Amino acid sequence: MYIIVKNNFQIRTTCFEGFKSMKAALVSTKLHHLYRNLIWRSFSTKFAMANSKFEYVRNFETDDRCLPNTWIVVRVDGRGFHKFSEKHEFAKPNDKRSLDLMGKAAGRVMTEFKEICLAYGQSDEFSFVFKRDMDLHKRRASKLMTSVASIFTSAFVFHWPQFFDIPLKYPPSFDGRVVLYPSTQNLRDYLSWRQADCHINNLYNTAFWTLVLKGNLTNAEVISLKVL
Amino acid sequence: MYIIVKNNFQIRTTCFEGFKSMKAALVSTKLHHLYRNLIWRSFSTKFAMANSKFEYVRNFETDDRCLPNTWIVVRVDGRGFHKFSEKHEFAKPNDKRSLDLMGKAAGRVMTEFKEICLAYGQSDEFSFVFKRDMDLHKRRASKLMTSVASIFTSAFVFHWPQFFDIPLKYPPSFDGRVVLYPSTQNLRDYLSWRQADCHINNLYNTAFWTLVLKGNLTNAEVISLKVL
Amino acid sequence: MYIIVKNNFQIRTTCFEGFKSMKAALVSTKLHHLYRNLIWRSFSTKFAMANSKFEYVRNFETDDRCLPNTWIVVRVDGRGFHKFSEKHEFAKPNDKRSLDLMGKAAGRVMTEFKEICLAYGQSDEFSFVFKRDMDLHKRRASKLMTSVASIFTSAFVFHWPQFFDIPLKYPPSFDGRVVLYPSTQNLRDYLSWRQADCHINNLYNTAFWTLVLKGNLTNAEVISLKVL
Amino acid sequence: MYIIVKNNFQIRTTCFEGFKSMKAALVSTKLHHLYRNLIWRSFSTKFAMANSKFEYVRNFETDDRCLPNTWIVVRVDGRGFHKFSEKHEFAKPNDKRSLDLMGKAAGRVMTEFKEICLAYGQSDEFSFVFKRDMDLHKRRASKLMTSVASIFTSAFVFHWPQFFDIPLKYPPSFDGRVVLYPSTQNLRDYLSWRQADCHINNLYNTAFWTLVLKGNLTNAEVISLKVL
Repeated sequence: MYIIVKNNFQIRTTCFEGFKSMKAALVSTKLHHLYRNLIWRSFSTKFAMANSKFEYVRNFETDDRCLPNTWIVVRVDGRGFHKFSEKHEFAKPNDKRSLDLMGKAAGRVMTEFKEICLAYGQSDEFSFVFKRDMDLHKRRASKLMTSVASIFTSAFVFHWPQFFDIPLKYPPSFDGRVVLYPSTQNLRDYLSWRQADCHINNLYNTAFWTLVLKGNLTNAEVISLKVL
Repeated sequence: MYIIVKNNFQIRTTCFEGFKSMKAALVSTKLHHLYRNLIWRSFSTKFAMANSKFEYVRNFETDDRCLPNTWIVVRVDGRGFHKFSEKHEFAKPNDKRSLDLMGKAAGRVMTEFKEICLAYGQSDEFSFVFKRDMDLHKRRASKLMTSVASIFTSAFVFHWPQFFDIPLKYPPSFDGRVVLYPSTQNLRDYLSWRQADCHINNLYNTAFWTLVLKGNLTNAEVISLKVL
Repeated sequence: MYIIVKNNFQIRTTCFEGFKSMKAALVSTKLHHLYRNLIWRSFSTKFAMANSKFEYVRNFETDDRCLPNTWIVVRVDGRGFHKFSEKHEFAKPNDKRSLDLMGKAAGRVMTEFKEICLAYGQSDEFSFVFKRDMDLHKRRASKLMTSVASIFTSAFVFHWPQFFDIPLKYPPSFDGRVVLYPSTQNLRDYLSWRQADCHINNLYNTAFWTLVLKGNLTNAEVISLKVL
Repeated sequence: MYIIVKNNFQIRTTCFEGFKSMKAALVSTKLHHLYRNLIWRSFSTKFAMANSKFEYVRNFETDDRCLPNTWIVVRVDGRGFHKFSEKHEFAKPNDKRSLDLMGKAAGRVMTEFKEICLAYGQSDEFSFVFKRDMDLHKRRASKLMTSVASIFTSAFVFHWPQFFDIPLKYPPSFDGRVVLYPSTQNLRDYLSWRQADCHINNLYNTAFWTLVLKGNLTNAEVISLKVL
C-alpha cells in the first residue's frame, strides 16, 4: 500500500493521497473482503512490529506513587514573579488584582480535583491539600503535581483579562512540588509555616513600601535603614 | 505593637493602619533610634520564632534529583483533549491550527530552557530532551517536569488567539512526567517509539476520518468495518 | 618518592620497602624539616588530585531518607530457606531450635538498635519496628535495611552452635526491605497481617505434617486430599 | 473447630492438640467427605477474611527498581570495624587473614549471583558490579543490596575459623548501598575512586604503623608529626 504518512509536524499536506484510493476500495463493497486482510497486515507487520521493538523504553518510567494514608500537598510557586510583577506594574506591597486572579486560578484547580479539600495561598504561591485517602491517578506524584501546576497556570492566563486591564506581555509560569505529611498535626504545622512566612513577608513588604510610597524614601534608603 | 496583618486573601483592606503610625515613627528621625529595636524585636521574637517552630516541615520534602549523566526526557500530555478538541471543533483527522499552536508552545519551552536540545511532538503530546550533562535546578525531577508543563500550558493559552479565530471556551491543561535514558541508543529508541506511535495513530485517524468525511459513513459504521 | 603501594589484595608484601627509608628520614630529626613538605606534596598532588578527579561519582548516590514521622518497619526474610531447612533436617512443622535461634538473632538486632521498639517473627521472617521519631542514620532506608539484615544474619550464623548440634553446612542469608506506615493503626494492621499469615501457614503446616508424620500419608497423598 | 494455634514463638508446645482429632477425622476415610467442607470453611472464613482485611498494608511497599541499562554497584562496608579489628587484634597496617577472609566472602557473593561481573575490595569494604542488562529480582534495589550484604556477612562469619585461630568474639556486620552508573566510563571512574581511596589510606596506614612499629614512636607522637 503506497501510504506515506509523515506525521511529525513538518510534513502533513501531501500524506493523505494514499488513503483516497484505500477509502475507494473500502467503501466499494464488492472488493471489501479482499482489501480487509491486506490492509490489516500492512498495518500490523510494519508498525506494530516497529512499535514493540521500541516499546521497551516504557520500562524506564518509574513508579512514584505517594505513600498511602498521608496528606498530599502540592505547592505551586511563581517562576520569576519578581520580574513578572514589575513588567505588569503590580501595585505594592500587594496587588489586589493579582491576588484575586491567584484565588480564581486556585478555584479552578479545586473544581477540577474534587479530591482537594483545602487550598492556601499567599504572594505568588498556592498550596493544595489532597484528602488523605484519595486514590486519584493512583497517587502518582508526577501526575498530581504537573496537573495542578498546569491547570493553575492555564487558569491564570485564561482569566487574566477578567482582572487586569492591561494585556499579558508574556506567558507566566509556576513550578510545583509534592510533599507528604503523615499526621494531621504535620499538615497543620505546614499550613502554619506558610502562614508565618506570609506574615513575615507581608509585614516586611507593607513596611517597606509604606516607607517608599508614603514616606518618600527611595528603595535604597529604606534598605539602608536596617530596621527591617 | 498594634500591627494586625491578616495576610491571607480574605482580609487585606483594614490591615495597613498600624503601619501608618509605624511609618510616621520611622521617618521622624528624632524618634528613630527608639523605634528601631522595638520593632525589630517584635518582628523577630514573634514571627521568626513562630517560623522556626513550624519550619521542621521542610524536612518532609524529598530529594528527587535525576541520576547524573542520563538523558532527561520530559513529556507533556494533553489532559482530556478528546473533549477539548470536540468543544473547539478541531478539524479531523489533524487540525493544522492546533498542531501549529503546539509547535509554538514547544518553542517557548525551548527558548526558556537552553538546556533542552530536542523536542518531538505529535497529537496532544510533546517530548523535551535535556542535555545529558546539564545541571539546571540541580536536575530535580519535580522542578523540571512542573516547569515544562507550566510553560507549555501557559504558552498554549497565551498564543491561542494567534492560531484560532474562536476564543478558548475553558482553560486546557497538560500533565507531565520525567523519564531517564542512560544511553543515546535508549534515547533514540524512545523517540522511535513516539514516532511509531504517531504513525500508527495518524494512519488510523486518517483512514477513519476519510471514511467518515469522504466516504459518508457514520462513526459507528466505520468502527463496525473492523478493518482498522 | 619511590613509594610503590599496590594496595589491592593481590600485592602487599613487597610494598613497604619504600617506607623504611621514609621512616628513617622522618625519625631522624635533623632532616625532618626537609622531608616534611616534600613528602606531603607528593601525597597531595598525586593522590588527592587523583581522588578529586574521580570523586564526582559520589553524586550518583541517591538520598533515600524515610519520610519523617512514620513507623519504619524493616522485614528480613530467609533466602532459600525451604532448601536450607531440608539440608539441616529441620523438624516439621516447626523446628524449635530454629525458632529459638531466630529469636536470638532478633534479640541481637534489638540490642544493637535501641531505636527498635518491637519485633515480630514467624517462620523464616522477622519484622523490626523503629520508633516513629527516631533519626538513626538520618533515616536512610538503605542503611537501615542492610544493617538489620546483616546483623540478623551474622547473629544467626554466630549463635548457630548454641542451638544446633549439627554444624552449618553452608552460610544462610536473609534479604530485607523497608516499609513505612504513617499511622499507628496502619502499623497494627501490618502486624495483624503478619500474624494472620503466620496463623494460616502454621495451621496448614501443622495439619499437613500431622497427616504425614502421624497419619502415615505421603506428601503427595496429603496434597491430593485437597482439604487443605 | 476447636483448633487453637498460637504460632508466634511464645506459645508452641500446646497448640497441636486440636489437630490430632482433626487428623483422626481426616484419615478415617469414612467420615472424610463430611469434614472436608467444614474444615475448609472454617479456614477460609476466619483466616482468609482476616488476611484480606489487613492485606492492604502491602500497598505501602514501594517499587524501587533500578533504572534499566545502568551498571548497578552494591558496596558493603564494615560497621564499627575499627573496634572490631582491635578486639580481634588485627595486624597493622594490614591483616592478611582479614583480607583473605574478605576475599573469601566476596567470592561467596559472586558464586551466588552469577549476574555480578566484577568485585573490588579494600580495607573493610567490597564493591560488587552487576551486569548492566541483568534483571535479577527485577533489579529491585532493596532486594539486591540486602541480599549482598547478608550473604557477605554470613560467609564472613561462616568462614572465619578457616582464617583465624582465635574465635569470633561477637558477630560483625556490614551495611550496604546501591549506586547506579549510566556509562562504562562512570563505572571505571567509580572503581578508580575506590582504588585512589585505597591507595591514600594504605599509604597513610603503612607509614603510620611503620613509624609506630619500627620507628618506636607512640601513636600520639606520629600524629603530632603532622607529616601524614
